[in-house]
Amino acid sequence: MEEKIKTTKSKLQPVPEPTVRRMPNYLTFLKELQKSGEQYISAPVIAKILNLDPTQVVKDLSYTGITGKPKVGYVVEDLLNLLEDFLGYNRQHEAFLVGAGFLGGALIQYQGFREAGLKIVAAFDVDKKKIGTEIAGVSIFDLKNFRNLASRIHISIGIITTPASEAQSVADIMVVCGIKAIWNFAPVSIWVPEHIIIQDTHIYSNLAVIINKLGQTNNDK
Amino acid sequence: MEEKIKTTKSKLQPVPEPTVRRMPNYLTFLKELQKSGEQYISAPVIAKILNLDPTQVVKDLSYTGITGKPKVGYVVEDLLNLLEDFLGYNRQHEAFLVGAGFLGGALIQYQGFREAGLKIVAAFDVDKKKIGTEIAGVSIFDLKNFRNLASRIHISIGIITTPASEAQSVADIMVVCGIKAIWNFAPVSIWVPEHIIIQDTHIYSNLAVIINKLGQTNNDK
Repeated sequence: MEEKIKTTKSKLQPVPEPTVRRMPNYLTFLKELQKSGEQYISAPVIAKILNLDPTQVVKDLSYTGITGKPKVGYVVEDLLNLLEDFLGYNRQHEAFLVGAGFLGGALIQYQGFREAGLKIVAAFDVDKKKIGTEIAGVSIFDLKNFRNLASRIHISIGIITTPASEAQSVADIMVVCGIKAIWNFAPVSIWVPEHIIIQDTHIYSNLAVIINKLGQTNNDK
Repeated sequence: MEEKIKTTKSKLQPVPEPTVRRMPNYLTFLKELQKSGEQYISAPVIAKILNLDPTQVVKDLSYTGITGKPKVGYVVEDLLNLLEDFLGYNRQHEAFLVGAGFLGGALIQYQGFREAGLKIVAAFDVDKKKIGTEIAGVSIFDLKNFRNLASRIHISIGIITTPASEAQSVADIMVVCGIKAIWNFAPVSIWVPEHIIIQDTHIYSNLAVIINKLGQTNNDK
């Protein structure tokens, strides 16, 4: 029998961040491709559709351990499985979210995260009107109970969707409670010890850039 | 009467993108501050709370046209108004969103955008089950009607929340229809002519970085 998957690189090898950032893009494209019934895909075709350099695609995908076959390229199913494995989508990472406002609520309801290996298991707020209610089946607890709940459930990811003024103190609680990675949507930079993983997603900043540039375009006229 | 607002810089001066990205952070902080009843705020205090360099804060805020007063700092209300003006939050920018899936739906429901000057006025999809329904009062139309509707309503911003494979063709339609800025949430890089403003927000890429780093941390043990 032919060997379908050749793995050449160790998974423990650190992967450059730009490569990691592109991996979900490859995966979503591969999923669509699978639906259409394609069995093989070549790096140049992937590169063309995702607007990337073909050499970059080959290099990126090599981190999953796959190598392409001459003339046909990659086996779609194999590459898909290796990408899901690389991205940890086959494991569930449980997260606590603090700040059950509009953005927090939208993230809780966003079922796409489940497919991507992230499960928000509980939300926290300080607003008495929100505490005790739930969003899409996720209970909202009093922030005071964060430590207590975090000590009982092993949680690796904390998501911050609080106002700016609360973000740092919430991050501090998360760090004390043993959370290893913080995904910060609050519009502020937060400080964490070096061993904590921090990732900022500042949606308003992106919007501000768009609107500012639009204003410049209009002024040019 | 004392002159409360001194404006020193022209609004037409191009502002560095990192500064623009920080502006919403200043604004949300100022809004919280106003709620607490504070009338004045100094650059060093802002810098401390937002984890920034005080010199940077002074420089950033000078682009709004404000200058601080010796000893007391900035007048909170004046700074707030100038920031909202700078960010265009007092004007409504209407947007069409294409791709009414989980993420698209979450963005439509996210009322925070309204406060930030962005109003999603219509959504589009190719899924017959979704067409004709609405999310939070926003109607979902057949993508085929995009051109027709865009020609009747002046829309400056297009939001893409489609699968990767559809993003480029949707962007092409948007450009043809005269949309000036595209906010791309699809997990793919899209190509647009140089005069079109493009801003990517790849939520899954951020999540991928977190999960990849978590995996490395666990492997280190």
